[in-house]
Amino acid sequence: MQRALHLAASPGVPLGPNPRVGCVLLAPDGSIVGEGYHHGAGSPHAEVEALRAAGDLARGTTAVVTLEPCNHTGRTGPCSQALIEAGVTKVVVAQRDPNPIAEGGLEMLAAAGIEVEHGLLLDDARALNPAWTFAHEHGRPFVTWKFATTLDGRSAATDGSSHWVSSPAARRDTHVLRALCDTMLVGTNTVVVDDPQLTVRDADGEPRPHQPLRVVMGERDLPPESRVFDDQAETVQLRTHDPVEALETLYRDHGRHHVFFEGGPKLAAAFLKAGVVDEVLVYVAPLLLGGGKSAVGSLGIRTITKALQFDLVDTLVLLPDSDDADDSAINLRLTLRPTPAKES
Amino acid sequence: MQRALHLAASPGVPLGPNPRVGCVLLAPDGSIVGEGYHHGAGSPHAEVEALRAAGDLARGTTAVVTLEPCNHTGRTGPCSQALIEAGVTKVVVAQRDPNPIAEGGLEMLAAAGIEVEHGLLLDDARALNPAWTFAHEHGRPFVTWKFATTLDGRSAATDGSSHWVSSPAARRDTHVLRALCDTMLVGTNTVVVDDPQLTVRDADGEPRPHQPLRVVMGERDLPPESRVFDDQAETVQLRTHDPVEALETLYRDHGRHHVFFEGGPKLAAAFLKAGVVDEVLVYVAPLLLGGGKSAVGSLGIRTITKALQFDLVDTLVLLPDSDDADDSAINLRLTLRPTPAKES
Repeated sequence: MQRALHLAASPGVPLGPNPRVGCVLLAPDGSIVGEGYHHGAGSPHAEVEALRAAGDLARGTTAVVTLEPCNHTGRTGPCSQALIEAGVTKVVVAQRDPNPIAEGGLEMLAAAGIEVEHGLLLDDARALNPAWTFAHEHGRPFVTWKFATTLDGRSAATDGSSHWVSSPAARRDTHVLRALCDTMLVGTNTVVVDDPQLTVRDADGEPRPHQPLRVVMGERDLPPESRVFDDQAETVQLRTHDPVEALETLYRDHGRHHVFFEGGPKLAAAFLKAGVVDEVLVYVAPLLLGGGKSAVGSLGIRTITKALQFDLVDTLVLLPDSDDADDSAINLRLTLRPTPAKES
Repeated sequence: MQRALHLAASPGVPLGPNPRVGCVLLAPDGSIVGEGYHHGAGSPHAEVEALRAAGDLARGTTAVVTLEPCNHTGRTGPCSQALIEAGVTKVVVAQRDPNPIAEGGLEMLAAAGIEVEHGLLLDDARALNPAWTFAHEHGRPFVTWKFATTLDGRSAATDGSSHWVSSPAARRDTHVLRALCDTMLVGTNTVVVDDPQLTVRDADGEPRPHQPLRVVMGERDLPPESRVFDDQAETVQLRTHDPVEALETLYRDHGRHHVFFEGGPKLAAAFLKAGVVDEVLVYVAPLLLGGGKSAVGSLGIRTITKALQFDLVDTLVLLPDSDDADDSAINLRLTLRPTPAKES
């Protein structure tokens, strides 16, 4: 299974709608007769690649797969059927498939008389595809909320100016993290006021080949000349104010698993109150403003014991680019997850 | 000189009004015939201790001292005079004395025909007594401003509650840093609203033997039963709203070198606007409030390019005490210094 996990994590697999999966076929003497991994949407599943590599040697083997073989016909045929036809006699799986459309593979294999097992190195298998797993288990995408702030909690000055709250290094870092998501989300107000492009650019400022879906939430009509409507990426407007409804739509109708949320204070407060912020990225700039716009609107919290609690999971110091004389500030990136409610 | 610096930094010297000083007496063959360091106010100066150790061997030696020998009679006689009387023929000094009362030692030695030098390992010598050096050079104490904040820049909730913004580990850390200062400073409003004791306690919550001076700034009369008036430490009220005036008084009339400032938003803004915040300690708690009291009042800044800029000099992760089930939050401590104005 460790070999299968290693295969699944092969570098170069583009982020897409499909999970990363690895498969190893073991002969009765323990030798590997075939292996494979999924190279991304549209290419063969890991099991199919391993079966092809093994050819006739697949008969009588044990298939070790990081994810339960699928039971539906998507762009490729069901893997469960392929394993049965190849004469595999045992299937060992790490993670059961959380996708309601694809599940049932193990039952189909068992019904065909094949011995099945699951749960081996489950945590490692889940960690291969954390957002994908989360989205299928919760019926909505994983939400990473990013904001930038001064030391005194200001995301913009009194006149609305905010560009230099983040250092150039922090902005470059943000683009790297945006690229790990499949969706960018803001509210209509942000589009009207800031007119962001919401694309992912590389270190040279060029757009990356794979762009996340751009999503604007809210009922307000947007100016057609807004930069989110340029041809750099697809854009969807969701005409709702309900974060849960918006996220369920993104999962159900758009197959989205990981939202990078950069909404303003009001929308951020709505997401926090709905309990749908799964990760917080805070860029802290070494500045004081003494006034201006807060990152978070009212949460209806009046006393300190009711504050929303998070676990600090990572701290990163973002050093300036030494070649850039105008870029001398060290920013800090904090990564947090909501503190799980205590069992009582 | 490195030996003299090492002696000056001997552990166990209590923080007091006097600087840390080390002295080595070298015979013409380079051997050490006497050495000493200052053990704190009321004890002999380093030079006197070294001369005593050397006895008659002091004649003809070179005295290597981290600080210019004093030229005034305080609790001990002037060290310059003692070096002359002992027959020392050369004096090498790292730092000249920035204290206007004590300066002139080198001139007195030179007038007595002794060869003098200064500037050797100057930066190291200044670093021995950073606040002491700063205070004498600026005519006011060095100011460390401490505040605690949530991720969204709130130092207290809407109802004023703030106690749990800092974790127990952050509060213990604050007491360690308070103990490095000789003065605690807040405004009258903080005393009236929060009634803090402003003492320094050890890890067990017991008051430390040496307590900083407690200073309350502002013209408002204070309730006599306020905890700052208990017998745990001395307390002074400075009836002014001017940070510069208050600090100059603390230096001139109270011999203070390092103020630990924990004022509320209005007084913090006054200190920042006056340019007398020399170091900022920010304790960041992994909480969101979405409303409440900011750490800093209005600075009159309207646009982001005018924000006060700081250099991040240190980041510390404060882990909770694993024995305390109620203490699970990781807090962060950031240390910053004002960014020096660019020369143009």
